[in-house]
Amino acid sequence: MRIAPECFPCFFQQIVKTGRVVGASDSDLLRAITEFAAALPRVAVTVTPAEVGGIAYRILAQVTKVADPYREVKRECVREALALYPAVKERVAASEDKLLAAAKAAIAGNVIDFGIVSDEDIFAQLDAAMRQDLAVNHFPEFKRWLEESRSVLYIADNAGETVFDRVLIEELHKPVTYVVRESPIINDATTADAVQSGLSGIARLVSSGCSLPGTIPRFCSEEFCGKLAAADLIISKGQGNYEGLSEERLPVFFLLKAKCEAVARDLKVNLGDLVLMKSRNYFSARHD
Amino acid sequence: MRIAPECFPCFFQQIVKTGRVVGASDSDLLRAITEFAAALPRVAVTVTPAEVGGIAYRILAQVTKVADPYREVKRECVREALALYPAVKERVAASEDKLLAAAKAAIAGNVIDFGIVSDEDIFAQLDAAMRQDLAVNHFPEFKRWLEESRSVLYIADNAGETVFDRVLIEELHKPVTYVVRESPIINDATTADAVQSGLSGIARLVSSGCSLPGTIPRFCSEEFCGKLAAADLIISKGQGNYEGLSEERLPVFFLLKAKCEAVARDLKVNLGDLVLMKSRNYFSARHD
Repeated sequence: MRIAPECFPCFFQQIVKTGRVVGASDSDLLRAITEFAAALPRVAVTVTPAEVGGIAYRILAQVTKVADPYREVKRECVREALALYPAVKERVAASEDKLLAAAKAAIAGNVIDFGIVSDEDIFAQLDAAMRQDLAVNHFPEFKRWLEESRSVLYIADNAGETVFDRVLIEELHKPVTYVVRESPIINDATTADAVQSGLSGIARLVSSGCSLPGTIPRFCSEEFCGKLAAADLIISKGQGNYEGLSEERLPVFFLLKAKCEAVARDLKVNLGDLVLMKSRNYFSARHD
Repeated sequence: MRIAPECFPCFFQQIVKTGRVVGASDSDLLRAITEFAAALPRVAVTVTPAEVGGIAYRILAQVTKVADPYREVKRECVREALALYPAVKERVAASEDKLLAAAKAAIAGNVIDFGIVSDEDIFAQLDAAMRQDLAVNHFPEFKRWLEESRSVLYIADNAGETVFDRVLIEELHKPVTYVVRESPIINDATTADAVQSGLSGIARLVSSGCSLPGTIPRFCSEEFCGKLAAADLIISKGQGNYEGLSEERLPVFFLLKAKCEAVARDLKVNLGDLVLMKSRNYFSARHD
């Protein structure tokens, strides 16, 4: 997905918001903003938003000298999600189609902005999201494709959401490789978050080699690119991974909430919609 | 008022929003964004937001070749406000303190974002704002200062709001000079908007000589700076004028709604608060 004009206010908003989280001074924030602005004219208009987001966070980290601003927020998110895990598992167990219910739980996990709401609110949001219809629903194709796959490459998005990924992974009944970021970026899941979420026992944890808030193959490790190319089925969570993988010819199913106008437009859905969508580039070519 | 980190997402948001209003293409918008970003490292951190906002709009106008993107929106705003004028006048006439009611009408006029809501909503918002308590209320000092003034210099903000300025001007019972922008900038009032609002019959209309979305003396005409320096009482409407005049030693009363975090923080009020505030720089020095 190409960068959109709407992405730029958002980059600056993220610098300010993250800077405030780590208690940066106004003058440090203004310095980070100015340095980031100076870098923009060198950015091609064909890049994906996650790449430019990565530049913004790198500059902010240099200026504030805080490499992992969301460390505590992420830990707390995973703790809160783990507290909800038994209730979500119960709901899945009681569902007619357990795989569908688990997939909806995983998409619902992408809905919640942990750390800004109370526990009760999180459960209410999760519950509402699990009841919400999918605006794009390629679940039947997903189910068929899964049955025919030997294994699954599952690309994580945020810490906390990882716990609901676990719910889906437990219903896949296939060997799963769970992919996290190489190093901390925003609230994206790293190996430590995946371990805290209980994923190390049920999936093989690997890094994409990429430290951007998304998965852009040319910034990933050669090892991970090999896994991408060899995968039977890829599950990609969230906007950042969609941005980097939407143009690739890979057997990907995107599970996400359209959280911004730019991504919603690219997906041809409305802001706030929940989506389980097969890759247009791969599956349309195969007439599936 | 100095620029704040929070101003930067807003500048980019305004470029995108205004660009969309005039139907700019993504590639034109990206060009405007990149040119604006390139200009930022040369901007001193001591400037006021209105100055940088002016740069953003100038670049957008050059790229889109549309000098007055809000022309039709402004006309419609004034039309809608004129339709509400009789009801507001009636409410002021029925008030115990007509000057206070008129001042609240003028502040309420700053609340409404015309053009994005229906007529009924505008009246509801106006009504709610007129009933809302002022978070800073220097009305007693304003009233006393007005009584002792020979004339009033009244600095306009948005088109549409101008009609509610007229309500206040009609209760001042002093000769009023009504100040508008030199040329179109966002939805700020120009001479044409003031005339359409019925102000030419009750006030002397002048331009500040400034085409920024605010009144920053060093960008104003010498003639207008002379008027500022000689004024007994200045009424300054809205955030943009506050940004440029808050540090000046002038007998200003600021009438506005705090519409963004940066201005709210500078005013020491909450977001959304309504304010009738005397200039700290002028009146504190005089122990008024």
